[in-house]
Amino acid sequence: MRILVVNVNTTASITETIAQQARAVAAPGTEIVGLTPYFGAESVEGNFESYLAAIAVMDRVMAYDQPFDAVIQAGYGEHGREGLQELLNVPVVDITEAAASTAMFLGHAYSVVTTLDRTVPLIEDRLKLAGLYARCASVRASGMAVLELEEDPLAAMEAIVRQAERAIHDDKAEVICLGCGGMAGLDEQIRQRTGVPVVDGVTAAVTIAESLVRLGLSTSKIRTYATPRPKKVIGWPGMFGR
Amino acid sequence: MRILVVNVNTTASITETIAQQARAVAAPGTEIVGLTPYFGAESVEGNFESYLAAIAVMDRVMAYDQPFDAVIQAGYGEHGREGLQELLNVPVVDITEAAASTAMFLGHAYSVVTTLDRTVPLIEDRLKLAGLYARCASVRASGMAVLELEEDPLAAMEAIVRQAERAIHDDKAEVICLGCGGMAGLDEQIRQRTGVPVVDGVTAAVTIAESLVRLGLSTSKIRTYATPRPKKVIGWPGMFGR
Amino acid sequence: MRILVVNVNTTASITETIAQQARAVAAPGTEIVGLTPYFGAESVEGNFESYLAAIAVMDRVMAYDQPFDAVIQAGYGEHGREGLQELLNVPVVDITEAAASTAMFLGHAYSVVTTLDRTVPLIEDRLKLAGLYARCASVRASGMAVLELEEDPLAAMEAIVRQAERAIHDDKAEVICLGCGGMAGLDEQIRQRTGVPVVDGVTAAVTIAESLVRLGLSTSKIRTYATPRPKKVIGWPGMFGR
Amino acid sequence: MRILVVNVNTTASITETIAQQARAVAAPGTEIVGLTPYFGAESVEGNFESYLAAIAVMDRVMAYDQPFDAVIQAGYGEHGREGLQELLNVPVVDITEAAASTAMFLGHAYSVVTTLDRTVPLIEDRLKLAGLYARCASVRASGMAVLELEEDPLAAMEAIVRQAERAIHDDKAEVICLGCGGMAGLDEQIRQRTGVPVVDGVTAAVTIAESLVRLGLSTSKIRTYATPRPKKVIGWPGMFGR
Amino acid sequence: MRILVVNVNTTASITETIAQQARAVAAPGTEIVGLTPYFGAESVEGNFESYLAAIAVMDRVMAYDQPFDAVIQAGYGEHGREGLQELLNVPVVDITEAAASTAMFLGHAYSVVTTLDRTVPLIEDRLKLAGLYARCASVRASGMAVLELEEDPLAAMEAIVRQAERAIHDDKAEVICLGCGGMAGLDEQIRQRTGVPVVDGVTAAVTIAESLVRLGLSTSKIRTYATPRPKKVIGWPGMFGR
Amino acid sequence: MRILVVNVNTTASITETIAQQARAVAAPGTEIVGLTPYFGAESVEGNFESYLAAIAVMDRVMAYDQPFDAVIQAGYGEHGREGLQELLNVPVVDITEAAASTAMFLGHAYSVVTTLDRTVPLIEDRLKLAGLYARCASVRASGMAVLELEEDPLAAMEAIVRQAERAIHDDKAEVICLGCGGMAGLDEQIRQRTGVPVVDGVTAAVTIAESLVRLGLSTSKIRTYATPRPKKVIGWPGMFGR
Repeated sequence: MRILVVNVNTTASITETIAQQARAVAAPGTEIVGLTPYFGAESVEGNFESYLAAIAVMDRVMAYDQPFDAVIQAGYGEHGREGLQELLNVPVVDITEAAASTAMFLGHAYSVVTTLDRTVPLIEDRLKLAGLYARCASVRASGMAVLELEEDPLAAMEAIVRQAERAIHDDKAEVICLGCGGMAGLDEQIRQRTGVPVVDGVTAAVTIAESLVRLGLSTSKIRTYATPRPKKVIGWPGMFGR
Repeated sequence: MRILVVNVNTTASITETIAQQARAVAAPGTEIVGLTPYFGAESVEGNFESYLAAIAVMDRVMAYDQPFDAVIQAGYGEHGREGLQELLNVPVVDITEAAASTAMFLGHAYSVVTTLDRTVPLIEDRLKLAGLYARCASVRASGMAVLELEEDPLAAMEAIVRQAERAIHDDKAEVICLGCGGMAGLDEQIRQRTGVPVVDGVTAAVTIAESLVRLGLSTSKIRTYATPRPKKVIGWPGMFGR
Repeated sequence: MRILVVNVNTTASITETIAQQARAVAAPGTEIVGLTPYFGAESVEGNFESYLAAIAVMDRVMAYDQPFDAVIQAGYGEHGREGLQELLNVPVVDITEAAASTAMFLGHAYSVVTTLDRTVPLIEDRLKLAGLYARCASVRASGMAVLELEEDPLAAMEAIVRQAERAIHDDKAEVICLGCGGMAGLDEQIRQRTGVPVVDGVTAAVTIAESLVRLGLSTSKIRTYATPRPKKVIGWPGMFGR
Repeated sequence: MRILVVNVNTTASITETIAQQARAVAAPGTEIVGLTPYFGAESVEGNFESYLAAIAVMDRVMAYDQPFDAVIQAGYGEHGREGLQELLNVPVVDITEAAASTAMFLGHAYSVVTTLDRTVPLIEDRLKLAGLYARCASVRASGMAVLELEEDPLAAMEAIVRQAERAIHDDKAEVICLGCGGMAGLDEQIRQRTGVPVVDGVTAAVTIAESLVRLGLSTSKIRTYATPRPKKVIGWPGMFGR
Repeated sequence: MRILVVNVNTTASITETIAQQARAVAAPGTEIVGLTPYFGAESVEGNFESYLAAIAVMDRVMAYDQPFDAVIQAGYGEHGREGLQELLNVPVVDITEAAASTAMFLGHAYSVVTTLDRTVPLIEDRLKLAGLYARCASVRASGMAVLELEEDPLAAMEAIVRQAERAIHDDKAEVICLGCGGMAGLDEQIRQRTGVPVVDGVTAAVTIAESLVRLGLSTSKIRTYATPRPKKVIGWPGMFGR
Repeated sequence: MRILVVNVNTTASITETIAQQARAVAAPGTEIVGLTPYFGAESVEGNFESYLAAIAVMDRVMAYDQPFDAVIQAGYGEHGREGLQELLNVPVVDITEAAASTAMFLGHAYSVVTTLDRTVPLIEDRLKLAGLYARCASVRASGMAVLELEEDPLAAMEAIVRQAERAIHDDKAEVICLGCGGMAGLDEQIRQRTGVPVVDGVTAAVTIAESLVRLGLSTSKIRTYATPRPKKVIGWPGMFGR
C-alpha cells in the first residue's frame, strides 16, 4: 500500500521529518511517499497561508503520477481536506482529526499544544467542524513558530511541556496532542515529562489511513464529497507550480 | 467610498449582475467595483471549487491597484473570508454572514434556499463557524445549479419558492435568505410569493460594509486576523492569473 | 427617515447623550428622535427594572403620534424587543444585538464590558436567545453603576479599560462591545487604550436600522411577531404614563 | 403554608380553575390563594401580552397584603419569573419550568403541547433559558386559543391528544407536558388516551413550592436575583391597577 | 407511603446517615427505608465501583420483599438509575438529578462540590445526560474521600466551604449542591458560611419522590424505560449477594 | 499481539460470529480471542441488561489469565467501557465509538442503524458522552431484535437496508454504521445496496486497537481512568460467574 504524506508548507526538511516519522510506524508493506507543495509559504501559521496550502496540497497530489491508496494532509488545523476528498476516490486523513480521534480513545479530555497563538482559533474551528471538539479541554500555544521547532528543539520542548502541564492541571486534559506536523518525534519525550499519553498526528494518521484501506473503506461520494461536476475551470490544473 | 464586490466564480455576467444589485442599494457617494477572479471555476458548487475561489478572490483583490474602503466576498457558503481579513486593513464582509446577520433582525428563525444539495453542508458549516447558526431553521437546496439560475430564471424562481414555502411551513422559518450570489434580484418576487421578508446577501453586505466604514470600524488585528508574518512565500503573488 | 431611539430608563440626560451619539453617525436625511419612557427606574440594572422598562418602552413608542421608520431600543441586555416587534410594522433594533452582530464582522471573538455584575446574566441570556453568543468570549462587569458613568466618567473609563484588557488577554476577545447605552461616546478612547475595535451599540443600531429601511425589510409577521390578536386588554394603552 | 398562585391573564374564571387544580394536590395545611392581575390581557398568547403580564403579576403580588410562603406564576412560557425573584424572599416557581423539571424524572424526552403556534417560540425560549431544553423532544401547538379551552373543552381535548400522539410517535416524546395554565384538569384523560405520563404545570409547581418551603430553601440573593438597588422608580408601585 | 433510600456503597453507617437525613424532611406518613447493597465497594469513587453499584442497587431493590412507592438512588454521579426505571413501575429519583433540578429553582447557576477529583467527570457526565448541565457553573472536588467525610467532619467542612467559595466567586455559582450522599447534614452549616442556598441531594430527592407519588406520576414505559423483554438471563437474580 | 474481543451477551454463537469477523481484518500476527461473559442476558437490549453486561464484561476480562494487549467491548451502545479502562493498563476500544470515529473520516454525517427502538436512546447517549454525536445524522431502529438477526438474516438485511436508505435520503447521512455487534458481516451487502460506505464496529475496533498498540499508546491514568483506589470490595472479584 502506498500512502502520500503531504506537507502543507514548502520547507523540504519538514517534509522529510514528517515522512520519517510516518515510516517509523507504517506497517510492513506500506510505502510512505513524502510530498512538498510546489507553491505556498515556508511555514503555515494563519488563514491566508492555510488557504494557499489547501490548493497547493490538492495541486501537488493531483500532479503525482503514480497510483496511491490514501493521502495524509500533514498540517495541523489547516484548510483543504474537504477538497481533496472531492478530487480523490481514496481515503484522505487530516492529522488534526487523526490526533483528536485517537486521543479520545485514551482519556476523558484532550488538549492540543500548538505553535503560535494566532493559530489557536484555526485549530479550534477545524475541530469544531470535524465534530471532535466536545472533549477538547483546550488548545494552547507554546509561542514557538513552526520554523523555530527545527532551529531550537530544546527551547521548543520546554515551551511545549510547560503548556502541556498547564493543560493537564488547569484545563483537566488527560491526553496531549502535538499540534504541528513539525513536532513529529517529540511525543515520547513529552510523555515522559508529563506522565500522560501524547499523540502525534502524523503517526496517528498513518495507522488510520492503513486501517481504512484494510477495511476497504473510502470517502462517501453521495453528497458533500461527490466528484466536482464537469465544468470550465480556468487556471487549474496545469498553471500552478510547474 | 469605494467598495469592491468580488465574485467567486469566473463568469463575468454573474459579476455584472451582482454589481448592479449592489449599486441599486448603495448610498449616494458609494462606488461599487465588481471584480471577477483571474482563475477558478465558472461556478462554485463544492469544496475544491470553493477553496480555489478563496485564493482567487484574494489574488484578485491584491491585484486591484486603486484605493478602496471595504471588500464584499460575493459567494454563498464559500471559503476564504478569513484570509482576506489577514491581508487587508479595511472591512471584509461575506454575503453568507451578511444575509444571516440581517435576517436575525427580522424574525425568530431564518432559512437559506440555495442551489444544489451538495452545497448545503458548506453553507451550514460556514454559518456554524460564523456563530450564526443557532437561529437557522434549515438550509434547503432548490436543485438549480448556479448557471441554471441565469439560463432559466422562471424555473429557478419556482424551485426557490417551493423550498421557501417548505422552509416556512415545515421548518418554521420566518425569513428567507437567498443562498447564492447569482440569485440577486429575485428577492422582491419571492417576498411577494411567500409573504415573508427575503434577504439578498449582496445588498445586505453593501449596507453592512458602508456601515462599518461610517462607524470607523475595521478588522481587529490583535490575533486571528493579524497581518501574515513576513516569510518566504513561493508562488504568491505575481504568478497567478496575470 | 425618522428613527426613534428609546431610552430604557427615565433619566432624561441619558436619553440626550444617547440621541446625540445616534445623531453623530446618522446618514444625511435621517432624523433621530430621542424618547424617555413615562415610567420606570432612573437606571435599569436588574430584571424587575428591565421588565418594567420593557412595557415602558412599548408604552412610550405607542404614545408617539408622528410617523416613524424604525425603532431602536437603547438598553443593553434588556427585555422587551419582541413585544415591540409585535406592536409595530417597522424594524426594531436592540442595541445589545446590534453591537454583537457588528462585532462579529470585526474579529473572531468579542467581549462585552458592562456596568454591575448583577446585569451580566441578563446580557448573557439575551445574547443566547438572540443566537449571538457562540462567539462571545465573555461578559465582564466594570463595577460602575449606570448613573456613575455620568457622575465619574474618568473612573468609569479606567474601570472599563481594565476589564477590556482582561477580556482581550485572558478571554481572547478581539473586539469589545460597550455594554450600556450610557457608555455612548467612550468608544474611541477605549479603542486607543486597548488597540482593538470598540463597538458602541447605539451607533451600530443606527446604521442597522437605516440599512433595514433602505433595503425595504421589516419584521416578519408570519408567526412569532404577528400583530397581537384582538382581545380585551385592561390597563393598556391609556392608563400608563399619561 | 400559604402559596400564591397567580394567573397571568385577567380572566377570573381561569384563575379559579387554576386555583382549584392547585388545591386538589396541595398538602394538608397548605392554603392556596388564587390571584388575578389588576391589568393585562384576557389571555396571554404572545410577547406583548406576556411582557405586560410580567409586570402585572409582580404588581399583583406586591399588592397582596398578607404573609405568604411561596409564589407560583401560572402562565406557560411567560416572561417575568426573574423579576419576582428579585422582589421577593420566598421561592418563586414558574409552571413551565415546574412541568419540564418534573417530566424529566419520568422519561428520556418530553414534549409540550400548547395552544397557538405563535406561542411555541416563547415556550422554547423560556425552556432554553431555564436550561431545561436538552431533553425536550418538541413543543407543539394544538391550534386552540386559550379561551377556546374553556369554551370548547371537547374539541380542545381532541386537538391536544392529536398533537400528543404525534409528539410520542414522530418526536419520540415519552412524557407530555400540558402547555397552558388553562389546561389544568385535562391531564388524567390525556394520560389514558396516550398511555404516557402527562404533567400539568400547576400541580407540579404546587409540590415543588411546598418542597422548597419544607427544605427551607429560597432564591439565592447573591447575584442575579439580588433585591433591586434602592433608586427612584416612577410609576411603580402604586400607579398600576389600584 | 414507603420510600426506599438505597445507598450505593456497602458501608452501613453511611446508609444510616442518609436514612436519618431523609427522615428529617419526610412528610408525616412517609416511611423511609434505608437499604445497603449486598455487594460492592465500601465507597464509590470511580467507574468500576459505580458500575458495580449500579447492579448492586438493582439487586438490593429487587430483593426487597415488601411493597414500596418510590426509590431513591443515593449516590452522587453514579450509574444505574435507568436500569431501575426499567425494572420498576414506581418512580425512581437519583440524588444527583434531584439536587440539580432543585438548585435550578433557586439561582441562575449552581455548582457541585464533591469528594475526589476523579469523580468530577462522572458527575459532569451524569448531569449532561440528564440534560441538567446547561446552568451548572462547575463541579469541584474538595479532595476529601467519601470515608474521610465520616472520619474527619471538621476537615471535610473546611474543604467543602473552600471550594464552595471558589465556585461562588470564580465560577459565578449562586447555589451549591453537596455532591456526595455522605455529605448529608452539612447543608445548613455551609449555607451559613457561604451565604447561598445549599442543596442536599437526599432531602431534595425525598420531596421529589413524595411529589411524584402524590401527583400519581411514574416512569413512562413507552420506550426507553419499558420493562425488559422476557429473555434468558444467567446469573440474575438469585446469585448475587444472598 | 493478542486482542480480547468480549461479547456483551451470553450467547456463544454471537461471540463466535464477532470473533470471526474480527479475525477477517486482523493483521498478521494479531491473535483474536473471543470471550463470552459468565453471566448476563442472552441479548442486550436495554439499560438493565446493559448495566449487567458492563460488570459481566469486566468480570470476564479480569478472569482471563493470559497476557493480552488490548480489549474490544463488542456491544453497541452499552455501558461499561470506562470501568474497563480503570481496571486495565492496555487500550480499551468500544465498538460504538470505533464505528462512529471511523465513519467521521468517510463522510460529512453518519447514521447508525440498530436493532430495537428502545435501544436508540442508549446509543445516542453513549455517542453524546463520547463526544462523537455532532456529526450523527440519526440513530434508526430496524425493529429486528438481536437474536432475530441470526434467526432471519434475510429479513434483517431488508429491514436494515430500508432504514439505511431513509437515513441517507431523509437524514442526509453519507455513511452507515451497523449498530449491533451481531450485524457483523452484513457490511459489504449493505454497501452494495445503498451505495455508501458501511462501517462495522467490530472490524473498525480491531484496526483501532491494533493501531493504539503499535503507536505505544494506552489509557491515561492521570484522572478519570486511574486505577481504582485500594478499598474493601465485597463480592468482586471471585463471586461472579466462576
